[in-house]
Amino acid sequence: MLSKGQETQKHILTESRKLFTVQGFQNTSISQIIAATGVKKGNLYYYFPSKEELGLAVLIDARDEFFQILESSLVGGNPVLKIIHSCNSILTLIQQKNFVGGCLFGNTALEMTDSNSRFGKIVQDIFSHWAKKIEYELEQAASSGLLNSKIPSTSLATAIVAILEGGIMLSRLYKNKEGLEDCILVIHSLLECKK
Amino acid sequence: MLSKGQETQKHILTESRKLFTVQGFQNTSISQIIAATGVKKGNLYYYFPSKEELGLAVLIDARDEFFQILESSLVGGNPVLKIIHSCNSILTLIQQKNFVGGCLFGNTALEMTDSNSRFGKIVQDIFSHWAKKIEYELEQAASSGLLNSKIPSTSLATAIVAILEGGIMLSRLYKNKEGLEDCILVIHSLLECKK
Repeated sequence: MLSKGQETQKHILTESRKLFTVQGFQNTSISQIIAATGVKKGNLYYYFPSKEELGLAVLIDARDEFFQILESSLVGGNPVLKIIHSCNSILTLIQQKNFVGGCLFGNTALEMTDSNSRFGKIVQDIFSHWAKKIEYELEQAASSGLLNSKIPSTSLATAIVAILEGGIMLSRLYKNKEGLEDCILVIHSLLECKK
Repeated sequence: MLSKGQETQKHILTESRKLFTVQGFQNTSISQIIAATGVKKGNLYYYFPSKEELGLAVLIDARDEFFQILESSLVGGNPVLKIIHSCNSILTLIQQKNFVGGCLFGNTALEMTDSNSRFGKIVQDIFSHWAKKIEYELEQAASSGLLNSKIPSTSLATAIVAILEGGIMLSRLYKNKEGLEDCILVIHSLLECKK
């Protein structure tokens, strides 16, 4: 069970994440966070000494949640089906949010990477971990003869992460599922390629 | 030849684009634009009545330039080679900028689409035009028997735009060419798939 302090911290993280995801980090003010959480300014700064520290804590909280979702989404009768299931889970998540906000990590990658290396480093680690998980399944698929791709699994895994991020961007932009669906269709095709 | 007024306008657009691309639109202040251009505030507002109007003009200016680059990059002995050449041109452009800034359109898609539909609409049109150009080459490739993909060309074209945008994001994040190169490798593989 969470203590009162932990509950307040979690509440601040959850509300701030919503604002950061839709508006971006730099465009979200401390006043907006105070309004959204109902937490007093002194209390907010007690838990998070600066907006930067809060932003980093939000990213880390979102990362931990994403890693759990990723882990539980990689399920299926074989490694290829696991990857497909994981991609479809991402589509479902994006649809549930009505294509608003997109991916906090992709947004942060574009917004913060050239101005604040602490944010960039966390997002690098998230994408690298994600790609490693996919690479592992690709290796398993290759060793069991399910997949015979000419593309090295490291490259294919990185590209799958990029395809999904690009697809999330298009679905957020056009406010429909087509962009991300087209991307998942292409991932299907890449995983079927037996040459 | 440009008039003095047109030269000033173009100068404002060029310098503002650099700032918007690296820092984002909302995080760039009018003071920064004045400092970067050396143009007086009154003069700036004479040409662009608000920061929003300036932002939209920058996007339109960048769009016109990108459409020209796209057109001249789609060259090669056949439609597949044209697409590959165009992808490689994008990699070269991103490398020349040392992976800083990435793609203004992708950045704007993520930063502005949920808060300002005027920005979103322009970026939608840019990505749709880009995808249409690729789709045309895919159709040409299919009708000449070069490509026999199970994926409809509309979907494949959209996915190629998404893959490139995702790859640009990764290359900007990690500050190296690997991410975008992996994506181009995958595009190669998708265009070679004769089933």
